[in-house]
Amino acid sequence: MISRELYKEAVKRTLSFFEKAGIVLTDEEKGNVEVADFGLNDLYNTGLELVTYLNTDRVCAKELVLFPHQRCPEHRHPAFGSYIGKEETFRCRWGEVYLYVDGKPTENRNAKEKEGVYTVFHEIVLRPGEQYTLSPNTKHWFEAGSEGAVVSEFSTPSFDEKDIFTDPAIERAPRVE
Amino acid sequence: MISRELYKEAVKRTLSFFEKAGIVLTDEEKGNVEVADFGLNDLYNTGLELVTYLNTDRVCAKELVLFPHQRCPEHRHPAFGSYIGKEETFRCRWGEVYLYVDGKPTENRNAKEKEGVYTVFHEIVLRPGEQYTLSPNTKHWFEAGSEGAVVSEFSTPSFDEKDIFTDPAIERAPRVE
Ligand SMILES: [Zn+2]
Ligand SMILES: [Zn+2]
Repeated sequence: MISRELYKEAVKRTLSFFEKAGIVLTDEEKGNVEVADFGLNDLYNTGLELVTYLNTDRVCAKELVLFPHQRCPEHRHPAFGSYIGKEETFRCRWGEVYLYVDGKPTENRNAKEKEGVYTVFHEIVLRPGEQYTLSPNTKHWFEAGSEGAVVSEFSTPSFDEKDIFTDPAIERAPRVE
Repeated sequence: MISRELYKEAVKRTLSFFEKAGIVLTDEEKGNVEVADFGLNDLYNTGLELVTYLNTDRVCAKELVLFPHQRCPEHRHPAFGSYIGKEETFRCRWGEVYLYVDGKPTENRNAKEKEGVYTVFHEIVLRPGEQYTLSPNTKHWFEAGSEGAVVSEFSTPSFDEKDIFTDPAIERAPRVE
């Protein structure tokens, strides 16, 4: 549950990151910033801010903001019905982001995982201009560096309600009080 | 046919537009800027500069540059084989772009069409943050304003060689001398 006050504060901060990154939004988009705390009530540690540019039945594009050291929790995008699952590319535009996927766990990782809950620890560092593509159903989580990060997401359609999170405490649908 | 000299000049100019728009590219991307004159030998009037971020079998994302008053010629993205055709969204990031599609011809248009060749003249003005989505096989052309433009393209996969141009003089594959 996100209080109105926290929501407003997070939106304001989100817009300041887009401004720093030189990303221009329409007034309508500014009024539709999504603030996700994944039901954990700990937004500044585990959370994500985003604007969805488009989400048709074929293509989706979003602009994400992560505050300093803010983390998007481990999840995957499974197949369902006739949909083979979401393919997702993250392109860092500003700041630095650490992306974790399956593979040999990286030693001395930049981000701190939620001990005992997350399961993938192979680190990919994305600096501005760098990007990484995830196949459907690939477990992943990511965290911003000390400056925060702005990340473009290019993907097949998003169905957030179908995402599967590793942490059983999580619910994706945002609830604003 | 684009001479080496013109190609180098156009790339340098393209990179200066990305810089003005605050868009960061990797060195590899900077070395892979595509300069298309569509075989018309008139790059600064009819041409397009672009970087392809990704083009998988499901998603494509590109960053386009148009120099001042430079025009991407009228074309459409048809279906072929099992592919229902490219769906394409243009999002203006910097500058101003005039997009033309089928519909009531706009009076006092910002761009000058190639008289007698182009066929669609309904104008959509895109300023930073504004975007427009085109269904497959929709005829379109676009031109930058007096400052030039930087435009993000989010789409289904690109198969440039399948594009159909209205002007019979056009060939899409770039040839650098
Ligand atoms: Zn994801
Ligand atoms: Zn097109």
